[in-house]
Amino acid sequence: MTLKTLVLKRVKDAKIASRILAKASTRTKNNALEKMASNLKGKAGTIIRENKKDIKAARAAGLSKVMVDRLSLDKKRIEEMTASIDAVSRLKDPCGVIDKMWKRPNGLIIGKMRIPIGLIGIIYESRPNVTSDCAALCIKSGNAVMLKGGKESINSNLAIYKVLRDALKESGLPVDCISMVESVDRKVVTHLLEMDDYLDLIIPRGGEALIRMVTDKSKIPVIKHYKGVCHVYVDKEANLKKALKICINAKVQRPGVCNAMETLLVHRALAKDFLPKAIEALRQEGVEIRGCNRTRELADNVKKAKESDWYEEFLDLILAVKVVKDVDDAIEHISKYGSGHSDSIVTENYNISLKFLKEVDSACVYANASTRFTDGYQFGFGAEIGISTDKIHARGPMALKELTIYKYIIFGNGQIRK
Amino acid sequence: MTLKTLVLKRVKDAKIASRILAKASTRTKNNALEKMASNLKGKAGTIIRENKKDIKAARAAGLSKVMVDRLSLDKKRIEEMTASIDAVSRLKDPCGVIDKMWKRPNGLIIGKMRIPIGLIGIIYESRPNVTSDCAALCIKSGNAVMLKGGKESINSNLAIYKVLRDALKESGLPVDCISMVESVDRKVVTHLLEMDDYLDLIIPRGGEALIRMVTDKSKIPVIKHYKGVCHVYVDKEANLKKALKICINAKVQRPGVCNAMETLLVHRALAKDFLPKAIEALRQEGVEIRGCNRTRELADNVKKAKESDWYEEFLDLILAVKVVKDVDDAIEHISKYGSGHSDSIVTENYNISLKFLKEVDSACVYANASTRFTDGYQFGFGAEIGISTDKIHARGPMALKELTIYKYIIFGNGQIRK
Repeated sequence: MTLKTLVLKRVKDAKIASRILAKASTRTKNNALEKMASNLKGKAGTIIRENKKDIKAARAAGLSKVMVDRLSLDKKRIEEMTASIDAVSRLKDPCGVIDKMWKRPNGLIIGKMRIPIGLIGIIYESRPNVTSDCAALCIKSGNAVMLKGGKESINSNLAIYKVLRDALKESGLPVDCISMVESVDRKVVTHLLEMDDYLDLIIPRGGEALIRMVTDKSKIPVIKHYKGVCHVYVDKEANLKKALKICINAKVQRPGVCNAMETLLVHRALAKDFLPKAIEALRQEGVEIRGCNRTRELADNVKKAKESDWYEEFLDLILAVKVVKDVDDAIEHISKYGSGHSDSIVTENYNISLKFLKEVDSACVYANASTRFTDGYQFGFGAEIGISTDKIHARGPMALKELTIYKYIIFGNGQIRK
Repeated sequence: MTLKTLVLKRVKDAKIASRILAKASTRTKNNALEKMASNLKGKAGTIIRENKKDIKAARAAGLSKVMVDRLSLDKKRIEEMTASIDAVSRLKDPCGVIDKMWKRPNGLIIGKMRIPIGLIGIIYESRPNVTSDCAALCIKSGNAVMLKGGKESINSNLAIYKVLRDALKESGLPVDCISMVESVDRKVVTHLLEMDDYLDLIIPRGGEALIRMVTDKSKIPVIKHYKGVCHVYVDKEANLKKALKICINAKVQRPGVCNAMETLLVHRALAKDFLPKAIEALRQEGVEIRGCNRTRELADNVKKAKESDWYEEFLDLILAVKVVKDVDDAIEHISKYGSGHSDSIVTENYNISLKFLKEVDSACVYANASTRFTDGYQFGFGAEIGISTDKIHARGPMALKELTIYKYIIFGNGQIRK
């Protein structure tokens, strides 16, 4: 069997399974999720043993310590994976919900009903917990899932995958609701992205290069979870205490994630009062500052920010700082350099706050809060499959509801069109 | 200037315009729409003159009578175009609507606000009214639009385009909110589909070949408006009078559109009573029948349906007819051969109707009504840009709301993440 034939077979089988899953009751789906969680716990030893093979290979290939850490599983991490699945099983089933229903003058009753999307392809990089996290979210939302993880974690992913499929079998759902191709050949991705007769949606999770490649090649709709070049703008009328607290939190609390601040914008009228203090406080937390000329006048030893720094998602303790003329200048900067993820204004001025909330075109726009809240749990959705930076279907935290679509159901009693 | 540079310039200018349009008030947008309508009426003579050039060229190129008719504009058609724009201006503005708002335990108030998508590319074929219809829907929903029509209607489209842009100028909106490249070079489309830094969404409107090409080449999200292989299933417990009325309407009332019935499925227990009568009635309306073996036993002179007929969107007075075992068999057939557009069951059985509504995975699923109701006006949306057969963002009739997306606006008072 050629690789393409194998991929096609898997995709076809998963599509058939998706139709059965779409009809499954909430109870059946929750049952499967509970079994998935308990089986993962029960098989933790096997999974950790398989994970060791990946770690060994990664070290031999000279992967960085950070990369090896991302890849590693231990008992605690497996417990986190099972806790995630349990949390998903407790969430409300989005399928079958009627968003609204109305009656037309001719008597037709039209309802808008939430249903699963169908078969979703997840293309991701090294973290093996993505395997179980995404599988759980897809199953709960009634979607079959085709998983394609990075080659670095192939042994871990396969071990987790087997455990999850056993759970499906035990709960009476088709095992192909969760599918994977065992090969590490990169062509698997190319083949998947062309099978638009079977796959309904692709969600890539990973770095910019992966997402760009998937977007370029895919014939299937893609929802991008791109980079987060997030801004905090400290306005002329900011409360300085709040501003400082928010800036530190947005930059330092977890710098390696997409909702961390990458660029600080400060109103020029406030720069002299605020920036020296802010830079000192940030430096105490280990942050490297790259500033515009005005910033460099106001604080010592600030490296000059290059043009490319304004576009950069540092994912590290590095911050670009720019003094701006006013809120319009700040919005203009965000529009040009931002990634449409999360941006925040700190101000006590009512009208300026509303202007910023209205005019900044990002998935999440904040007034007087840290950008770090952009997250399915923090928004109250209970989970997320990622943060969409796209402008169709879903923006911001994508949770169960965003993994569904709707259909119209129409009740008539013989109506014909005149 | 190379063609690519020209396309890029147009797209960049339109993107800048889109940001100004996104901030425009409902009053400004309606003003522009009213001017668009009145200018079209005022310039009807010029437009018809330009349209004559297209018709002459089409005839010289040997285009079919149907194609020439699609292309043709007269005073009545221009009045229909202006009436469409007026109707759109009376619709509710979807922008700025807060779908919901909630408070988190930490005091953050999160609102989900409808906003324009940004810059939308419409790639369409010969009908010149699409130019004004799509422009009006995009302007009302706050989106700039990049129009790319067929080469057959280039003179008509350019004439309409100039009139629409004049209206924008008079109403104080940037003319580049409606944009077009004057060239008929097919490479314009190829270039557009690669400019994912500026275009947010592509909507192709036309035949299968166009849609396939756009989907294959685009780096920009596409919402497909594909073919409609619509089914009516007449169940064992159908009311025969309703069934006959619905079948005739779904097939005959306007056979050339995507929501017309292409395949009739009949329960075997009913076939003998229903099919001969139905086929006779359909034939009286000029319908050619292509049937399965059982159908051919029940009526004379029925052509045998080929496998490909079950997949076919005839868009003509041709109907494929199949006798099925039961509702499951009907659902199976629709799932295999259908296009996910519109399907209807005729039955007096409560449980069977619900089963069909639940299990058929199409944008619009009907019980006891004609498939011809799948339409923005018939659904009460007041207008539509097309019927989506995709499974993300929007399904079924796509109207103003479906031309928007949302962003989260978050009101804090100093919250940081713990």
